[in-house]
Amino acid sequence: MQISGSALIGQRSSQRSVAGESAFHAIDPVSGAQLEPAFARTSAQDVALACELAAQAFDRYRETSLEQRAALLERIAACIVELGDALIERCVAETGLPRARVEGERGRTVGQLKLFAEVVRAGDFLGLRIDPAQPERKPAPRVDLRMRQIALGPVAVFGASNFPLAFSVAGGDTAAALAAGCPVVVKAHPAHPGTSELVGRAIQQAVRDCALPEGVFSLVFDDGIDAGVALVAHPHIKAVGFTGSRAGGLALMQLAARRPEPIPVYAEMSSINPVLLLPHALAKRAEAIGQAFAASLTLGTGQFCTNPGLILAIDGPDLQRFIDAAAAALETLPATPMLTAGIHGAYERGVERMQGQPGVEQAGAGAASRDACAHAGRSALFVTDAQVFAQQPALHDEIFGPASLVVRCPDAGTLQGIVEQLEGQLTIALHIDDADCDLARALLPTLERRAGRVLVNGFGTGVEVGHAMVHGGPFPATSDGRSTSVGSLAIARFLRPVSYQDMPDALLPAALRDGNPLDLRRSVNGAPG
Amino acid sequence: MQISGSALIGQRSSQRSVAGESAFHAIDPVSGAQLEPAFARTSAQDVALACELAAQAFDRYRETSLEQRAALLERIAACIVELGDALIERCVAETGLPRARVEGERGRTVGQLKLFAEVVRAGDFLGLRIDPAQPERKPAPRVDLRMRQIALGPVAVFGASNFPLAFSVAGGDTAAALAAGCPVVVKAHPAHPGTSELVGRAIQQAVRDCALPEGVFSLVFDDGIDAGVALVAHPHIKAVGFTGSRAGGLALMQLAARRPEPIPVYAEMSSINPVLLLPHALAKRAEAIGQAFAASLTLGTGQFCTNPGLILAIDGPDLQRFIDAAAAALETLPATPMLTAGIHGAYERGVERMQGQPGVEQAGAGAASRDACAHAGRSALFVTDAQVFAQQPALHDEIFGPASLVVRCPDAGTLQGIVEQLEGQLTIALHIDDADCDLARALLPTLERRAGRVLVNGFGTGVEVGHAMVHGGPFPATSDGRSTSVGSLAIARFLRPVSYQDMPDALLPAALRDGNPLDLRRSVNGAPG
Repeated sequence: MQISGSALIGQRSSQRSVAGESAFHAIDPVSGAQLEPAFARTSAQDVALACELAAQAFDRYRETSLEQRAALLERIAACIVELGDALIERCVAETGLPRARVEGERGRTVGQLKLFAEVVRAGDFLGLRIDPAQPERKPAPRVDLRMRQIALGPVAVFGASNFPLAFSVAGGDTAAALAAGCPVVVKAHPAHPGTSELVGRAIQQAVRDCALPEGVFSLVFDDGIDAGVALVAHPHIKAVGFTGSRAGGLALMQLAARRPEPIPVYAEMSSINPVLLLPHALAKRAEAIGQAFAASLTLGTGQFCTNPGLILAIDGPDLQRFIDAAAAALETLPATPMLTAGIHGAYERGVERMQGQPGVEQAGAGAASRDACAHAGRSALFVTDAQVFAQQPALHDEIFGPASLVVRCPDAGTLQGIVEQLEGQLTIALHIDDADCDLARALLPTLERRAGRVLVNGFGTGVEVGHAMVHGGPFPATSDGRSTSVGSLAIARFLRPVSYQDMPDALLPAALRDGNPLDLRRSVNGAPG
Repeated sequence: MQISGSALIGQRSSQRSVAGESAFHAIDPVSGAQLEPAFARTSAQDVALACELAAQAFDRYRETSLEQRAALLERIAACIVELGDALIERCVAETGLPRARVEGERGRTVGQLKLFAEVVRAGDFLGLRIDPAQPERKPAPRVDLRMRQIALGPVAVFGASNFPLAFSVAGGDTAAALAAGCPVVVKAHPAHPGTSELVGRAIQQAVRDCALPEGVFSLVFDDGIDAGVALVAHPHIKAVGFTGSRAGGLALMQLAARRPEPIPVYAEMSSINPVLLLPHALAKRAEAIGQAFAASLTLGTGQFCTNPGLILAIDGPDLQRFIDAAAAALETLPATPMLTAGIHGAYERGVERMQGQPGVEQAGAGAASRDACAHAGRSALFVTDAQVFAQQPALHDEIFGPASLVVRCPDAGTLQGIVEQLEGQLTIALHIDDADCDLARALLPTLERRAGRVLVNGFGTGVEVGHAMVHGGPFPATSDGRSTSVGSLAIARFLRPVSYQDMPDALLPAALRDGNPLDLRRSVNGAPG
């Protein structure tokens, strides 16, 4: 499939010229080479047209049967697989990620779409509730009330740099929104526009194959902010999904809050994912934890939202064993390419700032890159103490990439106090042994208040796509801690409840009719019906 | 029970003097008389203390057993009933509402607390999900993941003027937040501070009786904005519930969005609750609908968020019959007291503005008040046509009180176009006969997009407290259409999901442990477990 460099507006390609000043290119981050073709910056008119088509498609798309919507999601998955090697190769070229990782991420993306197809078929997300009429109730009869969740409206999704497939054009937000019944307009991440167009064409094809209105999906491009701003400001857009920087997420939150009609923004922003090493775990397996930590830190060159950026432990020889083991492991791990020159530059500046911090020492560093690579990220491990950490708020900030900071705490109380002062996090990991259970139990309330996922004897970098996953957390990990961006509960972010009072059966949505014709789980008077 | 005029900060009374400039009084809106005692404006320090106590209570309160939390809600209900006539009399004096209405509202408030006790005991709100480990999965083993919903944190609740019991100190937001496990700090509405203190003391008593931490509940007073602003800005507050004016709700939304940590605001603001009279219903029963409409319009002197402020119908003799019947019915209904001088003044100005609108005619008015009453609201019925309505955005604004506007539409398409252009609403009512079903079906998608509740052959003014009620709707009816402020689903606004990965059974919350020791409904791998 040819990459055209044009926005996909419904079933149309934008006619905007890809020549001249309104175009940009993807860059191969390994070689620094410019990749063809040029991509036209989508005009405000085309963004508006995408939103208009989405609004036109909305009423019909949201009332498609559960089977039709599940079939669309599965068809998208199939069309992505049909892209074959062309997708993998373009994605590797645009991101510098290893081929195996990109293939794995494709599998995850396809699996995510299929999971949402199952969720749609099961229908539990409809939240069906029935309070039957009680005509004899005193002092007044009770009306018949029935509730379902309906789709919010057209959704704007911003592709993420670090997951060119799983958090981008056909990623979690798109899958959840389409599952909920919302048309989607994606703003592609400018670091991988070719990958985005290919996946976008797969969705466009699936919409056509399923004979759905063209406005169900559009894709726009911009390496600046204009198209994204126009998209979020458009009155037809009713929610926003975003994964990226804190500055970007905050800007979108403010933009959405200032609209004449404010809309929800689900922004996943920044997290340093504290790892707490409890004393007995350290005593028993400091070296093993150190090695596993080094592997987690450098996975994907540290470019995961769940990267372990902060290690908290009680100071002593066992902690030193952990640090030594981690440093030794990092030394054997050569630097690998980062996603863009911009991300690499920001990472290098972050590491330099850390190196210049009084009271902070560097305890380890990765090996140099084995290959010629313009933007390889070398891992860096720093150590400080609790007092310095408490006094330097800058040490709490995320450095996006394979850098982490160990904080030596004098005692468990200090450790807990540090966690209490941290901002909201996506994950907090606990490493424990049986004898650490009492301390772990004492810490748990704080951890729950500070993170969306609490995990034991592991690292947050693996994010399972299932029903019980929360990939979210209190601000500023996300803009809205009531939600998750990974897993089946993500569908809830794009729904709102509507209730129907005394509506004749013939007018009710099928899911709420007498006799339960769709055979869905419903609650009646608050109990399973 | 004596009314002291002091804030309730946990189990303490504020020591701030009620004398001098920092005090205000309730006013009897019927006589205009000032009611004793004076109420001290709660200081910023006391607001901060209430928030501090709430934060201290949070971890313990949110981990009380479901039974303990249900018992608290039931104990609050009992303590409110124990207040007896003192509560009813003070409430009647402060609001001018009829005694029967206040007694009914007390019943509703008590019923609401008991409903949430049931919801807590059932435990479905915990949203328990388990994805068991799959150690044999290829290519990588699957971790064990378990999810539950936990309380958001301390919640600020603003009492509403128009429901001194059901939407105030122990109203829906307080009940839902306490049910979810959130401590609550209420800012009393200054129009009924005595009622608020009495109910607050009932909650304070219940917290004491249940041996819970004092910070679970506090109550602050202010007839200005300072205490409310301090409350919403306080870093320990994690969500806000508000029922009131659009200006007030928007101000809170902006305040919350500008905090270093933005928090969710659930503001119920303004709605004109369109009523659509379809042709066959009008032909059959124009007079009966007109009479029922007049009763709904004047209920509670029109001071309901669900008051029917806009009537849309196709023009013709049947519509004229409706208008004549409604006008005749209104003439027999004498003006009744409004809640405050301020509300009455705003209502009178709204009616005068309407009277001065070119193209708008007054078709009916209520009788004068039978009693001497300083602030009686006389109902007013206006008529215009679709063209005038479309051209005058001011006609779309809520007039809080018993005023309504009939819009004569030339045809069904124009009627639908008007609904499409309206802002978000709490309710939209359809009056239909069998032969109207096709038109009603064609209208439904628009109605669902514009309202939280769609009702047939009735008026929105009755808001049933049940499981299937949505008292919410798209902006500006509320700040967040994903939620409801009435009914059991309201608990969801004060929850967020947390997931636990590979956590030993002994550390897991009981609700998620192996063997389901609390015998709660849980889903396993996405299906009922």
